[in-house]
Amino acid sequence: MTNVVPVVPLVRITGATRLYAIVGDPIAQVRSPEVFTGRFAAAGINAVLVPVHVPAASFDAIIPALLALGNLDGVLVTVPFKARMVQFASRLGPAAACIGAVNALRREADGSWSGDMFDGAGFVRGAETKGQRLRGRRVLQFGAGGAGSAIACALAEAGVASIRIVDPESGRVEALATALRRAFPDCDVAPATAQRGDVDMVVNASPVGMRPGDGMPGDIGALNSGTLVGDVVVSETPTPLIAQAQRDGCAWVNGRDMHSGQIEAIMGFFGARPAAAGGTAEN
Amino acid sequence: MTNVVPVVPLVRITGATRLYAIVGDPIAQVRSPEVFTGRFAAAGINAVLVPVHVPAASFDAIIPALLALGNLDGVLVTVPFKARMVQFASRLGPAAACIGAVNALRREADGSWSGDMFDGAGFVRGAETKGQRLRGRRVLQFGAGGAGSAIACALAEAGVASIRIVDPESGRVEALATALRRAFPDCDVAPATAQRGDVDMVVNASPVGMRPGDGMPGDIGALNSGTLVGDVVVSETPTPLIAQAQRDGCAWVNGRDMHSGQIEAIMGFFGARPAAAGGTAEN
Repeated sequence: MTNVVPVVPLVRITGATRLYAIVGDPIAQVRSPEVFTGRFAAAGINAVLVPVHVPAASFDAIIPALLALGNLDGVLVTVPFKARMVQFASRLGPAAACIGAVNALRREADGSWSGDMFDGAGFVRGAETKGQRLRGRRVLQFGAGGAGSAIACALAEAGVASIRIVDPESGRVEALATALRRAFPDCDVAPATAQRGDVDMVVNASPVGMRPGDGMPGDIGALNSGTLVGDVVVSETPTPLIAQAQRDGCAWVNGRDMHSGQIEAIMGFFGARPAAAGGTAEN
Repeated sequence: MTNVVPVVPLVRITGATRLYAIVGDPIAQVRSPEVFTGRFAAAGINAVLVPVHVPAASFDAIIPALLALGNLDGVLVTVPFKARMVQFASRLGPAAACIGAVNALRREADGSWSGDMFDGAGFVRGAETKGQRLRGRRVLQFGAGGAGSAIACALAEAGVASIRIVDPESGRVEALATALRRAFPDCDVAPATAQRGDVDMVVNASPVGMRPGDGMPGDIGALNSGTLVGDVVVSETPTPLIAQAQRDGCAWVNGRDMHSGQIEAIMGFFGARPAAAGGTAEN
């Protein structure tokens, strides 16, 4: 989650501080420790989220031990572990089950771990925060990779009527469509055809728009003020797709909105826990 | 390390923050996270020391995984793991080797872990901070338990000439004396006899003095201004032994001096590491 909190918060760490970890390889580039530690502090929760560098070759040996720690309450998962982490969750949310990847786990009261994928939930949350209704939407989506899969699952879970998918790799379009139909049989999912007719939502989940000079992610058809436009790309200035949406008077959700939405969604998933008692002094 | 830092420091946690852990069961009562995290911040090191609750039944499974984390640089060890942790150190310092227990480990440049026991080093450091010379001292020590063993080893390592040991459990006096003689053959170690003649240093490493109404840890013989007096007990008011030392004009080292000394010794053992580069934004 990039650049969503402008200042690095200052926090206290005591013996009673509860731990959350973000696991990845490499790890130094992640921003979640600042973001979530700050959110815990703001919520009055005695907890910190620390970066945990898990060398990829040792992942399978390290994760069970981490999850056995008595004061670890939650885990965020980043590259390259989102798929490999699934095996360590006793329960998966719908999006995680659909795409076979998790990016957050929490410890349940019985000590077991539940996981879900919030990369797409952030998009849904971001749209809802802007007052947009997703149920019944007819979606044209560009991109069927990791982010695209997560967003399509979250949209299906949120009740969109149909999703038409565009991706240069037709194989992963088919794979995603198959997974979505199995998990969400009420949602009409198919590869997009050349015809761009009946859509009222356009989502870019491809990398197009990240580089200066990038144009549209593809043929977006005709926008009107009723079309909801989303773009996963985080950039200082509007991407070509978001700029077009603004010109056409559309509601839009950009990469920053998605990141903020994901933080809210994960904070809700983690839930607030009371700070543990301080106990007496030792070591 | 009790009550050595009056305020809980505020720190930043980023993706590049290096980790130190204190492992114990239970863990909420430990003070090291506040103390060492504050010391790292004061030294300009981007590192935190976090409490890590390792359930005792899972210790052997969890510790190798913890030590395999790519951004963990050091570990403190508290009850009940100081002896069990020895097996995970590739190298032991003299005190740790002598008593078979460690309370701190650091990652070396080659990725292996070195351990040592600083429970006694704190006493030595505390005495040195007060300008006291230990080499050649003839010591009468009360207590041959965990703290007593660590202090006796540290004193022998610091070059005291002799140590006479008093403990209600004669078996552990013999065991400690045997270990000390093997590790430090130049130091004359023996159970104390009833005769309290030729000593110029008295150390209480027993719990006597912790409770209101406690008296002396035993027959301390005659003190004079050349006698160095030490007491492991941490208390707001002077223990009976320290009070006697003050009346007799002796130099003295109390539990608080020892704790401060141990923090200095462990900070030196950990060494200063440069903060890792921040990298670019992600997650």
